[in-house]
Amino acid sequence: VRNRNIKLIVAFDGAAYRGWQVQPDARTVQGTLSEAIENITGETVILTGSGRTDSGAHARGLVANFHTTAGIPAPRLAKALNSVLPRDIRVLSARPVTADFHARHDARSKIYRYQVYRGIVLPPHLLSEHYHYRYRVDLGPMREAMRMIEGEHDFASFAAKSGRLDGMVQGEARNTVRRIFRSELRTSGLRLLFTFEGSGFLHHMVRNLVGTVLEVGRGRLKPVEFSELFDRRDRTLAGATAPAHGLILMRVRYDRKR
Amino acid sequence: VRNRNIKLIVAFDGAAYRGWQVQPDARTVQGTLSEAIENITGETVILTGSGRTDSGAHARGLVANFHTTAGIPAPRLAKALNSVLPRDIRVLSARPVTADFHARHDARSKIYRYQVYRGIVLPPHLLSEHYHYRYRVDLGPMREAMRMIEGEHDFASFAAKSGRLDGMVQGEARNTVRRIFRSELRTSGLRLLFTFEGSGFLHHMVRNLVGTVLEVGRGRLKPVEFSELFDRRDRTLAGATAPAHGLILMRVRYDRKR
Repeated sequence: VRNRNIKLIVAFDGAAYRGWQVQPDARTVQGTLSEAIENITGETVILTGSGRTDSGAHARGLVANFHTTAGIPAPRLAKALNSVLPRDIRVLSARPVTADFHARHDARSKIYRYQVYRGIVLPPHLLSEHYHYRYRVDLGPMREAMRMIEGEHDFASFAAKSGRLDGMVQGEARNTVRRIFRSELRTSGLRLLFTFEGSGFLHHMVRNLVGTVLEVGRGRLKPVEFSELFDRRDRTLAGATAPAHGLILMRVRYDRKR
Repeated sequence: VRNRNIKLIVAFDGAAYRGWQVQPDARTVQGTLSEAIENITGETVILTGSGRTDSGAHARGLVANFHTTAGIPAPRLAKALNSVLPRDIRVLSARPVTADFHARHDARSKIYRYQVYRGIVLPPHLLSEHYHYRYRVDLGPMREAMRMIEGEHDFASFAAKSGRLDGMVQGEARNTVRRIFRSELRTSGLRLLFTFEGSGFLHHMVRNLVGTVLEVGRGRLKPVEFSELFDRRDRTLAGATAPAHGLILMRVRYDRKR
């Protein structure tokens, strides 16, 4: 009987990975982490992640869980996993949780950040986690568009055509309505930092939102036109998909008791 | 006649380089940048840097200059250089200066930052530019020691035995007195950010100061003992040399007219 349920908080640099989820013939974070767990516990486990992440996107606080019979104390487990993992994946913490905890089903919200650098030349230390966007943008209309994202909307115009949905339950694949609790734009020097917190996100939704808000910043789309995209439900009317390497899953929130 | 003098501001990730200065059989930033200039201008130039940097250390704003006959406008030159340089070296700006400008002799001050992360597990996005220091440190005594560094002191206790001196003039190799205008410690979450501004620095001086201030933080050296190191002039009494990858040359200052 696998009587222990372990919750992991994981950070990774996604550059070398084809996203979180195991795929045939591809190096993925889930695959690499599962192998490390097998290596340390001697067991093949089912590793459940809080959700998929895009190929090349990063995480500071993805959550995962797995059931095991291994008796190794949780803090020592984190240390042991980090000793066999590549340095671009780190287990920030490991702790035992109740048997019914499920990293995906129980997630209450996810916080994503998208990072843009708008200087003329991208400095090397910002290369791996910033989208270099050289067009002049106007922050006022962008902030207006960002505020419109908050609340419950149909995000079909911002969903990848593939239709893969993050956090979806079998059978509700066609539901493109999501609730966004927070949608903010901050600046830090020449950086633009977009933050989104929501209960769930469609595939490529954050990257498509950012790509479209940048179009608003360039004046190629008015804020009022942006707001109409929710009703239009047409991916071709929204902006380009911003590149994956600017996207970071910052944190996954659960109920207090978790 | 090489009638144009070009000033470059350069940023680089030093991980792949044996420091700034050209060396036989080693990849250096000066060597790589000189080749790029040769590639673009068709001329072999003498590239003068504001000073050497350690193998593996980084820069956000190193300054260099070279004389050329090439007529390419300076902003286009920056773009052309970046098109042939590897992505871990970027020319942030290029502009013509008066013929007598010399990147090393004319430097009034240099600003270095040293970055430490003191959490239990180092997140991947901090890996390349932070020294992971896991001992518990007390910030009060460290700030006290940092304040003592300001002013004019004999830094012989903090100089590499090799005796190579940054910004030194021929013949004054034995002079280990330097003036530090600013020596500060800030925190940002679990990060410690040390800033030093001075007219010149001895070889390994910043890394040795940080290594010793960390010893003060651990309580292995009292602030008063730290202050005595200036008079002792003995490298063996100070702390270890903090690793190069936490060190960043942030900026080089010149007189306004430059």
